[in-house]
Formats: sequence, C-alpha cells, structure tokens
Amino acid sequence: MKITPDKISDFNKNQGDSYVAELDFLKNRCAKQDVSIDDIVSKVADFQVAVPSWALGAGGTRFGRFSYGGEPASLEQKLDDIGILHALTRSAGAVSLHIPWDIPKDIKAIKEVAASHEIAFDAMNSNTFQNQDGAEASYKFGSLGNIRKDSRNYAIQHNLEVIKIGKELGSKSLTVWLADGANFPGQANFQTALQNTENSLKSIYNGLPEDWKMFIEYKPYEPNFYSTIIQDWGTSFMLANACGERAYTLVDLGHHLPNTNIEQIVATLMFKGKLGGFHFNDSKYGDDDLTVGAIKPYALFLIFNELVYGMQNNPQNPNLAWMIDASHNTKDPLEDLLQSLEAILIAYAQALLVDQESLKVAQQENDVVKCQEILQDAYRTDVRPVLKAAREKSGAAINPLQVYRSFGVRDALIKERGSQTKATGL
Amino acid sequence: MKITPDKISDFNKNQGDSYVAELDFLKNRCAKQDVSIDDIVSKVADFQVAVPSWALGAGGTRFGRFSYGGEPASLEQKLDDIGILHALTRSAGAVSLHIPWDIPKDIKAIKEVAASHEIAFDAMNSNTFQNQDGAEASYKFGSLGNIRKDSRNYAIQHNLEVIKIGKELGSKSLTVWLADGANFPGQANFQTALQNTENSLKSIYNGLPEDWKMFIEYKPYEPNFYSTIIQDWGTSFMLANACGERAYTLVDLGHHLPNTNIEQIVATLMFKGKLGGFHFNDSKYGDDDLTVGAIKPYALFLIFNELVYGMQNNPQNPNLAWMIDASHNTKDPLEDLLQSLEAILIAYAQALLVDQESLKVAQQENDVVKCQEILQDAYRTDVRPVLKAAREKSGAAINPLQVYRSFGVRDALIKERGSQTKATGL
Amino acid sequence: MKITPDKISDFNKNQGDSYVAELDFLKNRCAKQDVSIDDIVSKVADFQVAVPSWALGAGGTRFGRFSYGGEPASLEQKLDDIGILHALTRSAGAVSLHIPWDIPKDIKAIKEVAASHEIAFDAMNSNTFQNQDGAEASYKFGSLGNIRKDSRNYAIQHNLEVIKIGKELGSKSLTVWLADGANFPGQANFQTALQNTENSLKSIYNGLPEDWKMFIEYKPYEPNFYSTIIQDWGTSFMLANACGERAYTLVDLGHHLPNTNIEQIVATLMFKGKLGGFHFNDSKYGDDDLTVGAIKPYALFLIFNELVYGMQNNPQNPNLAWMIDASHNTKDPLEDLLQSLEAILIAYAQALLVDQESLKVAQQENDVVKCQEILQDAYRTDVRPVLKAAREKSGAAINPLQVYRSFGVRDALIKERGSQTKATGL
Amino acid sequence: MKITPDKISDFNKNQGDSYVAELDFLKNRCAKQDVSIDDIVSKVADFQVAVPSWALGAGGTRFGRFSYGGEPASLEQKLDDIGILHALTRSAGAVSLHIPWDIPKDIKAIKEVAASHEIAFDAMNSNTFQNQDGAEASYKFGSLGNIRKDSRNYAIQHNLEVIKIGKELGSKSLTVWLADGANFPGQANFQTALQNTENSLKSIYNGLPEDWKMFIEYKPYEPNFYSTIIQDWGTSFMLANACGERAYTLVDLGHHLPNTNIEQIVATLMFKGKLGGFHFNDSKYGDDDLTVGAIKPYALFLIFNELVYGMQNNPQNPNLAWMIDASHNTKDPLEDLLQSLEAILIAYAQALLVDQESLKVAQQENDVVKCQEILQDAYRTDVRPVLKAAREKSGAAINPLQVYRSFGVRDALIKERGSQTKATGL
Repeated sequence: MKITPDKISDFNKNQGDSYVAELDFLKNRCAKQDVSIDDIVSKVADFQVAVPSWALGAGGTRFGRFSYGGEPASLEQKLDDIGILHALTRSAGAVSLHIPWDIPKDIKAIKEVAASHEIAFDAMNSNTFQNQDGAEASYKFGSLGNIRKDSRNYAIQHNLEVIKIGKELGSKSLTVWLADGANFPGQANFQTALQNTENSLKSIYNGLPEDWKMFIEYKPYEPNFYSTIIQDWGTSFMLANACGERAYTLVDLGHHLPNTNIEQIVATLMFKGKLGGFHFNDSKYGDDDLTVGAIKPYALFLIFNELVYGMQNNPQNPNLAWMIDASHNTKDPLEDLLQSLEAILIAYAQALLVDQESLKVAQQENDVVKCQEILQDAYRTDVRPVLKAAREKSGAAINPLQVYRSFGVRDALIKERGSQTKATGL
Repeated sequence: MKITPDKISDFNKNQGDSYVAELDFLKNRCAKQDVSIDDIVSKVADFQVAVPSWALGAGGTRFGRFSYGGEPASLEQKLDDIGILHALTRSAGAVSLHIPWDIPKDIKAIKEVAASHEIAFDAMNSNTFQNQDGAEASYKFGSLGNIRKDSRNYAIQHNLEVIKIGKELGSKSLTVWLADGANFPGQANFQTALQNTENSLKSIYNGLPEDWKMFIEYKPYEPNFYSTIIQDWGTSFMLANACGERAYTLVDLGHHLPNTNIEQIVATLMFKGKLGGFHFNDSKYGDDDLTVGAIKPYALFLIFNELVYGMQNNPQNPNLAWMIDASHNTKDPLEDLLQSLEAILIAYAQALLVDQESLKVAQQENDVVKCQEILQDAYRTDVRPVLKAAREKSGAAINPLQVYRSFGVRDALIKERGSQTKATGL
Repeated sequence: MKITPDKISDFNKNQGDSYVAELDFLKNRCAKQDVSIDDIVSKVADFQVAVPSWALGAGGTRFGRFSYGGEPASLEQKLDDIGILHALTRSAGAVSLHIPWDIPKDIKAIKEVAASHEIAFDAMNSNTFQNQDGAEASYKFGSLGNIRKDSRNYAIQHNLEVIKIGKELGSKSLTVWLADGANFPGQANFQTALQNTENSLKSIYNGLPEDWKMFIEYKPYEPNFYSTIIQDWGTSFMLANACGERAYTLVDLGHHLPNTNIEQIVATLMFKGKLGGFHFNDSKYGDDDLTVGAIKPYALFLIFNELVYGMQNNPQNPNLAWMIDASHNTKDPLEDLLQSLEAILIAYAQALLVDQESLKVAQQENDVVKCQEILQDAYRTDVRPVLKAAREKSGAAINPLQVYRSFGVRDALIKERGSQTKATGL
Repeated sequence: MKITPDKISDFNKNQGDSYVAELDFLKNRCAKQDVSIDDIVSKVADFQVAVPSWALGAGGTRFGRFSYGGEPASLEQKLDDIGILHALTRSAGAVSLHIPWDIPKDIKAIKEVAASHEIAFDAMNSNTFQNQDGAEASYKFGSLGNIRKDSRNYAIQHNLEVIKIGKELGSKSLTVWLADGANFPGQANFQTALQNTENSLKSIYNGLPEDWKMFIEYKPYEPNFYSTIIQDWGTSFMLANACGERAYTLVDLGHHLPNTNIEQIVATLMFKGKLGGFHFNDSKYGDDDLTVGAIKPYALFLIFNELVYGMQNNPQNPNLAWMIDASHNTKDPLEDLLQSLEAILIAYAQALLVDQESLKVAQQENDVVKCQEILQDAYRTDVRPVLKAAREKSGAAINPLQVYRSFGVRDALIKERGSQTKATGL
C-alpha cells in the first residue's frame, strides 16, 4: 500500500474544501495584532513529529489486548506504515526505533526503505525493563540502578549497542527511559540506587558520539508501584547536569502525578537549556497513553505556549526531539496517530497565534483578566484552516483522515498482511 | 452606575464588529449537518445563570485576602452589580441569596431593586458552617449531622427561616451545602452522622412549600480534612431519594476528588431524574473556585454535552438551577464573572453544535475515531460569533468586557462606594 | 509438597517463642478496658480469607512480567498452593475461582482436592474483559454494557455458566467485575451504557439460585482510561438496589480515586445493609495490587474499624466474602500472600481492640483528642502476640513465613513443577 | 500557669506506670539484633522540635474559624504556652518566630521569658504573602518573584529585617516560604518569575550572617491555584544551589501533590547535602495541616527511616531544623501539639529500631520480602515505653496529655486570659 503525491493531490482537488476563505478571515483578524498567518502556516508545515516503531500495532493493558488486523510484522512494514502517515500529513517524517524490538537485520536495506518514505531516524530507545530470551543478567530488580553490578553493566552495554545501531542508521540521540524502582518500601536503598544510576548514565554518556545527545526520561510510577528512581523532572535534571552538556531531560506528558503543572516544568527546563525531548500523549488518570489532545487540549495548548516561547527565547536548548508516545488499545493505530498529529499541530498553531507582545505588557501591568483573554483568544480560534493550508502547501492531504478512509488503507493492509499479525511492542 | 440599553446599543453600533460574516460561514458549514445555527443562537440568548450574592467582592484564602475597591456594601448594591452584569450580557438574570449574609431588611424594597434590573430570585442558600454572633448552638462540630440535638435543631430552624425569606422574595428552591464532617479519624461515628443528616434533611424537606425544590450539594473535603458527611454524588443521591421527589442532587464542578469523571455523574443523575442544580467554576487542584473555563474548558464542554443531552432526553429532571460559584482572589469580581459567563455560553453553544444523530450512529458502530471527531469538531469550532449574535439579539453588549472597561465601570463604583468597602461573604 | 499439622506442631515447639509472656502483658493492660484478649484471639483464629485462583503465579504489568519458578500449572496445583497457605496459617480456608481460567475438568476430583486441604469454594468470578479463542462475540467494546446485543447476551450467558459451575462446587455467590467503559469521550453514551448494564445484571440476578448472592464490583479506571460504567460505590449501590435484595456492592481497596475516604464508604454500605464482598490489597498510585498493609496500614486499620463496627451493629449485611486480590510482580507469590494475611489479621485484631464504649462517649462529648487517642492506642499496640496465639490455637504455624522458608517450600515446588511453568491469570 | 519539674515528678511517681517492664521486654527482644534500646531512649530524649509562634491559637479555613478559649494574646504568652509543652515533654525546646506577627517589642525581656522556659530561638520566618497596614508595596501579585521591582525590593528588605531581629534573639537561620505564583494561565511569565525569584533570594542570601543558614520551602499550590513559583523540591534545590552553600531545601510534609513519594525526596536531598529544614504535619487531601501522624503514620515512619539513615550517613547536611507546622481547627492547640510530638517521637524511635545491617544484606540479595519484614518489624513494635523512659529520664511527664488534663491547664489559661483572646496567625 503506497500513497503517492499524485493520488493525494487529486483527492485534494476534488474535495473543494472551503478552507481558503476561512483562512482569509483569520488573516484579516490577525492583521490587527501583528501576527502573520502565513508565517504560522509555514511553521506548521515544517513541524515534524517522530513516530515510534512500537506504536503501529494494537496496544494493551495488563488485563489483555485486542488485536487489530493488518499490523506490521517487520521493521520494513512499520516504516511503510509511517510512510503512509507521512504521505498523508507531511508531518510524520521520522521514526524512533526501539531496541531490541526493532533491530535492523540489514541496515542498508532499512535505510533505503526509510529514504523512500523520506523518513529520518530520530532518537533511539533502549529497553532495559524486560528480560530478553537468553539474557545474561536480569532486569527484574532494575537495570542501570540495580544493586548488582552484572545487571548494571549488562544494561550499560545494551545502551552502547543501541548507540552503535543508531550511528549506522544516522540517528543523533539516545533516549533512556528507566523503569527501575521498587514495589515495596525498604526494597531498595534510595541513595545507593540513585548513585548507581548516576554512575551508569555517566558510563553511557561517555560512550556517546560527540554529535549525539542523551535524553533522560522521568516517570513517577509504573511498572514499579512504590518508587521509581528517576521519579520527576528534578531528578532527571540533576542527573543530566551530572552527566554533562549533551545530556537533557525528556518530558513525557503522561509521566506526572495528578494535577502537576507541566507547562511550568517545560518553562523551567527551557530556561535552563536542559529540555531535550518531548513525548506526546494524553491521559486522565495516569500514564494512560491516549490520543494526544483527547482529554486535556487546553493543557496541551498551554504547554505549547511555553514551548513556542522557549524556542523563540532560549536558544541554548537543542532542537527538541518530538515524538508521539501513545498506546492504541481501541482505535486503528494509524487513525489514532492521525488524530494525534492533528491535535499537536492545532495546539502548535494556537500557541503561535498568541500575541506575545500584548501578553508581556498585560503581565507587566498585572492585568490578569487581559492575560487570560489573550491566551484564550488564541485558543478559541479555529485554526484548522491553518493546518489545511500547511498540508496543501507541503503536498499532504488537506483532510488526512478522510483520505485514509476513502483510500481504504486499513482494508488494504489487512489484505496484504492478514488479520493475525502482531507488531512487536507493548 | 447604571448601564442602559441605549448606551449599549450605541456602543454596539459604533463597534462595527465583523461577527456577522463569521456567523454566516458557520451557518453554511453547519447546514450540511442539519444543525440550525439560528436555533443555537436563540438557545444561547435564553440561557440564564444566577450570580450568588456573596461573589461580588474579593474572595480570599486562609492565608489572607486582598481587597478590591468599590465592593458592594449592601444587598441593594449587590443587586446593582448583578444588574450591570445582566445589562451587559442579558445572561445573568438571577441572584442566589446567601442567608444570613444577605437577609433583606425591607423585602418590598429589595424586590423592587431586583425588578428594576430584571433579576429573579433563584435558589436560596443557607449557612450552617459558621457561628453567628449570639448563636444559641454551635456548628463547630457540625450542623444537620451534629451529634448534639440542639445544634441539629438550630440548623433545621435556620433552613426553615431561609425558606421563609425565600418565599417572600419569590424564590422556589433551597440549596443545602453541608460542611459537616470530621478532621480526624474517630472524631465522628459515620453511621450516626449519616442517620442524623438524613433525619435533619427530612425535617427541612417537610417544611418545603409544595412548589419548592431542595438541592443537596456534596463535597469530598474542606473545611473538614478527614471526612465530609455528604462526600460524593452517591451519598447526595441516596439522601435525596430518602427525602422525596422534590429533593435533588446539586453538582458543583469543584467538589470532586482528583481525576473524577464529572460528566458521567451528570449523565447518571439526569438519567435518574435527580439532577437539580449546577454550580460553575474551575479548578486545577481542589475546590479552587477559579473562573469558569480557565483551566479545563474541554471538560466543561463534555459536561455540557451531557447536560444538553439530558435536557433533550430526560424530561423528568427539573429546569436546572445554574449558578456561578467562584471566588475572585485576584481579578475584578465583575470582570471575572463576565469571563465566566462567556466560558459557560461557549461550552453550551459548542455542545449544541454536536451532531447527535451522527454520534449515535458512530457509537452504535463502535467507530471510536469518528465519535471523537464529532465531539472535537464541535469543540474546535469558534462559536464566539454565536454568542455575539445572541447578545445583540437580546439587547446585550456584543463584547461585554470591552464595554465594561470602556465605560469605566470599576472606577465609577470606587468613586461611588470608596475603595475600602468589603462585601459580606467568604 | 504437603505440610502436615505434625510438622508444624513440631516446629512450633522447637521455636520457643516468647509470645505468651507478651500476650499476658496485653491481657493485663486490656483488663482495665473491659476488652477480652481471649475473645480477640478466638475471633482472629476464626477469620478466613479466600485466595483467588489466579494469584498463585507471578503477576505482571503491561510492560512485561518476570516469571517465578514452581508456579502451579493446573487448578489442582493451585489448590495445593492454597493448601500450603492454609496449613501454615489456618486463615486461608477458601478459594475464589476465576472462570474461564480455572474451569474444573473433573468437578468431583477438584472437590476432593479442596476437601483434602479443608478449602471451601467462595465467590465465583466471571471474566468478560478478555476475548477467549473461538468466542462468538467480542468484549473489545464492552460486555454487559456493550451497545451490541450479541456481546451483552454472550456475557450474560457466560455469567450464568459460571453460576452453574459454582453450584456444582458448592459456592454460594458470584462476583461481577465489569471492565466495561470507554477510552475516549464520545465513544459511548453514558445513559445507554448504564441502562444496558442494569438490564444485563438483572438477567444474571434472575438466574441466581435462591441461596446465592451477587456482588457488584466498582472501579474508576483501568483497563479503560476515560470512563468506566460502574465507576464508584454509588453506581454499584444503585445497580444492586435495582437488582434486588441479594445483590450487594463489593469493595476492592485499590479501586478508588486518589484520597478517597474508603472507610466512610464501608460504613455507609454496612449501614444500608449492602456490603457483600471485600477485596484486600494495597496501593500508592492506582490499582497497584500490592501486598496488603504494605503502604497504608493505618487506613487498613480504619477500614477494619468500620468493618468490625458494622459486623457488630448491622446484622442486615451478609457474612462478608473476604478475598486477597493482589498481584505478585516481585515477590514469591506464596510469601506475598503470607504477608498479606498477616497484615489483615493485625488490622483486624487492632480494630477489635478499640474501646468502642469509650469511643462512643468521647464522640458524644466532641472530645476529638480523646477519640483519636482511643483509635491510636489500639493501633499502636503490638498485636502480633494475638496472632501467634490464634495460630497456635488453631494448629497453624506461630510464624508462618519462617516455617515456609525453613521447610524450603519454594525450592520443593520448583523441583516438582519446574521453573518455567506459568499459572493462568494476569 | 507554670508547670514545675516537681509537680511533674510527683505526678509521675503517683502514676505507677508499668512501662518499665514493657521496656525490658523490648530490650530483650532487640538484644538479638544488636540494637540498643538505651541508645534509642537517649536519642529520643535529645530530640527537640520547634513550635511556631503562630500555632498556639485556633486555626481556620477560608470558610471561617472557631475560636478556642485562653489563646495567647502576646508573644510572651505564646512562649509561656510553649513552656508548658516543653515542661511536659522536654521535647519542645525551641520556638520559631513569624514576623511581622511576632515582632518582639523588648528583645531582652523576650529572651528572658524564653530562657526561663529553656526555649531556644530556632529558624525565623518571614511573611510576604499578606499586605500589612501601611505597606509601601503590595504582595497581591507576588513578593520575591513579583514582576514589579518595588514589591520585590520591599520583600527583600522585609527578609533582611527578619534576619536582623533573629540575630538579636540568637536565631541562626531564616525560612523563606514563598506564596508567589498565579491563579490563571498567562498571568505570569514562568521564566521571568523564576529569574526574579532567584535574584531576590540571592540578595537575601548575601545579607545572611556567616553563621546563618537559609531554608527555601516549596509547595505546589495554595494560596495560588494555577501555579506556584517554587512548586517542588526540584525548583527549591535548583535555587538553593544557585544561592550557595548555606542555602538548603526545606520539606513540609503537606506540600506535595497527591501520591508523592516524600521519603525518596528526603533521601535525595540528604544524599546531596541539601536538606535543611523539616515541617511536620499530616494530611489526606492537600496542605491540610492536621496533627502529625493522624492520617498516614506509616509514611511518617518511612520518612523518618530516611532521615535517620541520612543523619547517620550524610554528615554534609546540617542539623535539621525540625518544626511542627499544623493548624488547630478543631482541637485544643496545646493538646494537638502534644499529640503531634508523640507521633513524631514514635516514628523516630521506630526508625531507630530498624535493623540497618540486616536491611542492607536483604537489599543486596533482592530479598524483597525480608526487606519489608525488617521495616514492618520495627514499625509494628509498640515503642511507647521508649518514649516514656526518655521523658522520665529528662524530667518530663511520662504521659504528657494525661498530666495536661489532670492539671486543668486549659481552664487555667481561660481563667487567666479570658475566652475571647485570639492569637495572631492564620
């Protein structure tokens, strides 16, 4: 199943979408505020989000999993799926590989497949939270922070191996998510575990190529339910500082305690030049890994407001590694990802619409009512015409989900691959 | 300070707002979906939200309070303030009195002031969480659920007195919010406290005029920090059933534990014909009493989606008693209320936009992606032109906040009343 | 591996435990308070908790599972494991079966195995949250509350089948835990789903033998992450009332939103005669299913305080169906269950120690400080001598965990069953 | 009202408490573990907790306050109240002053009163969350982090003034709790606010005498309900590092989001040598400021377990500034403080009982079950005999609360001071 630019272009034409007139309205309205809709369209068109290789099949919970037909059975097929997303949106131009689930057997062949879809290799992900068959050391009681040296070393070696594969593919960064922690009070000594983790991370950092970055993820709980070694941004930030300049914190939207003000964390990290990566999803209760924007779209906008501000004012941060990190328990994974991409770009466009100059003045005057009006004015604006313009500009489908369904993509995939395949991943 | 229809009409004319063209766009888009924007405009124009008499001055926290100038010093002045809100929006046509803070000295005079502003008397509120000077019994350890009979009886009598005042004013309902609970384990026997509360509520219910309704509010914590007798909707619903047909549950958006699915509670109560009242505010952590829509506007929309569905499908419920129950710690209280009214009407209009027929079909087919698309399509629509049309239709200001500021209302109030007045309330 | 009374008795004798002197101290202290330690010893000795058939192997999370050696591979072996627990403690004299994981092939043989261990068959559990191979209808979008009639009927039939198996085994109750809900707003109509659920539960209730009870479990989230049909005790209570007298609510300690006051829910349900079953575990974040008492032992005590009060004052409730519902991700499952049993009996003994008469007086006098002192005095007492006496009295091991380790039970099981078996379950 | 050592000694004698025999049992049991009960008794006897000057009267909530009779009306009377606590317990030998509530008029006289009660002056507290009459700049929109320079400078000057007063009294540290934050998204620029706060803190730090320490408190919300500048330990730690060596983080138990693992934060800060102060209280929902140990005594024990470990292994931390920071909404404030002191010392004694050597071995072997057993063995031990021995040793009452009631302290205070006094504070 390959979706060519021609097919999309034809579909766009026949659709007769009226977004252009709506966009003109928006331009007129914004003209008063010294905000350029054309600039926003360009920025939205340029925005690229990586898709992780494990997110193309059905996800599940500890209570089970309901399979979805046509799941990719190989890394090539996963790249093909991302290729479909990218063709439809021109926003999904990168893959984030997860090792050992997606070790490429033939590097050159894989690079060619990726290139054929114009997909880059973004951050590499290691996995030290599961034991693989024949593993020489166990991660049951931890990996980089394990009290046993053999497990720590084994996990360090695995990360170095991931870097090696990434180098061959052209990736430039490593994401370390550490499930290490404890299920019970007393199980681990907090200080020892933290010290071991810091030492292990430094060992990996020392093996990092000079043009690579390392992202340290944090998470308060799950799969451990009493404590997690890197439980919050503060711990990650402390560890990144200990490692060195090219170590950064990675924020995953689902990895916070109830009611956390995430946008403030984002602002703090960007202020300090230590925000490196960003994982999108949405949640109501915990790390629910739902479609981006499905539950708290205003929080997503507020976070993007800080990201946009930081990208404009804090040049000391690297280009952020954006990735969708969701689980598709109920929906067609590709449709789910299309909805996530849409929500991301909407929040981004709305954040770009914020009248930063007026906001600054209102903040200086403590005009709280006006501050709120300025943010909400941007948020309440229907920016979907902006996304449509951006997509048409870059050769994508004006309405990607509609095209996906019209083209019968899922049925074609099931026909090709069968209904019983199961993608590697969670 | 009185804002006349003429002044508003003049301002509207000179403003040259372009909303009409935007509204036409919306009409065209919706025409395809068998949704009538004109109907929505009418419904939005008809929607009335009560303003509580205690919410016109600055609020505070246990850490203190920062006064706001020009606060109303009497019930008459409070009605004048609501009159300003109603003149500007035609959506705030009711007051909800709080006794004993706002006992009218001259019923007839007060009714005349209210009538002059076209303000009705909505639900009456009793207060049994504070001791008044000279009180014959103490509420320190509870009121309707107190273990001591004298305190229970005193609280029952107070509620009957509130009903009496309400009858004279033309109100038709009583809201009972009970702070009763315990700060420490063991302090109270849960079963005894619940039984006492049920008996006391029945005594009040028996004193209710035949054309009155009683609303029972629930709240998990604060001002008691271990337990609250009516801690959740389940307890309120159980008590309302025990009292009788004209007893209903009242939902306050801020009165829930973290992550509660409030829209589901709303749907359940409407399904059972037991939703009576609704208090608007917003919150991030607890009962924060912030401006409506300031934190979680999508949740507000989802709740309105259930309210609209219920109003259309569950005739066994009464007309809901809507009220804004927010605290104004930082903003000009009147501006804060204008922002709340705006957010309420936006969520209401968006909910009215939901294509219920298509949604039903998609739900039947378990097309989860489409279900989400339908809701989000309504939510992402910029419905502010609808509100503007509704307001112009009913003689209100197209842009109420702008008019409020242009007319220099706050300055005028400070001039009239001084900067040191303090409204009764929290 | 069979642990005989003789072996235990011998071990007890050689141990020379000094608990008798400690118990005498306790008796002297309590003599002043009109509390009989001997009575408490008897009650503790009589207390029986069911072990679910799925909890004898290693548990896992969506991120994976670390196997434990010697897991039972059949229902017979599961009963053998519970037999070990019961021999060591004389407190685990019941099994709670989960169908279809543990459908007995030969009813008579299974009953004999159970009888040989003196294990009764407590509540039966149905499973409608996973699709089984060859299923005629899917539970992907729900079971009893599914919008499709075929899935609802299939789930009803499954429950009736579970009752049938239970009847043959001698069970007298059915536990229904419903995972039904939605991952996304809009996915399901709340009112329709609730109505369907109520109707389905009534169909099952109508198929219940006259001497059976039905327990309706509730849970706020997981495996659905937006809404769950039976989200709280209020919904379960409402449904139980709709079904009839022999339908009750079941409380699982892990199934609550953050900060919920569970003991108050227990008190309310007992007051209304509607508490039927109780699932023990502990948690810090969500439904973590940790060892009972591992995180919040004081909350467990407060809950037991209400349970004891209810058992003494609310005869309208049935004998509660107690069960441990924990997951063993890290520990030896049998050791984990031994620790859970210990924590349950400690909390029970402490609750029995509460001086109810003095507490009632202190509550009547609003002597909050004394109320707390009374509860904490019971809680701070080291009641382990009581448990030891109760166990010795009933022929169990004074120190079960010590005996388990001394006898090398796990090694023996691994020897018998191998290290690669995997018990059915989560 | 003065409680002399003689009176206490007499009461102790007549009481005939049987704790000595219980203590002997404990000694025998612990002898096997290489833990010395005598050492623990000594450490418990030496432990001193400061009482804040604002905590001797009734507290309240935003919904009101119920006065308590006999509240201290002056700083002298507050010291007298702490004197009573210290005489009864010998554990409350310090006061923590809050300025401007408790500016001493006559330094020398105040020092004499304190000395007469053997009370030291612990950390000084500034207050920049309320405007005082005649204030030259407003804290309504923040103090050290205010966007306006005049408010920032005013707040800096206030802190320097507090240091000055503290120097005269003999205090050696300053606690800065900053309420600064925002009630609404957009109200403040996170980066600017953080930068301003850092600069202001540095200004204060530069004014710190060389032998002084500065403690930076954090809190996620309240009195601001959208964001707080110093929202978590990570932010406080970052700011303390920016200020310098003598700046430390202060942990208040109530200042965390739901489900936070506080003991891990404590361990991290001690590991890094940056834990300076500690505020005790307990809570179920938010910053409830309840009696220490009233809700989560096991969590308190786990925290003390880390504190004890840190005190033994991390000499780079200063002697911690311990303080009770609770609000007395329901109980007699002095009785409430006595209960808090009891709970603190119980947790401390239990933590000292932990067999650290065995725990280390069990952790090394990943014997999770044994790790839990070791902690719980200490926690389940009734250590009240240890406290009694420690108190008798130091000349305090064996049972302070009993003595307080027997001596009729509250009645005497009401007689002396009247029933209408109101202590300054919240």
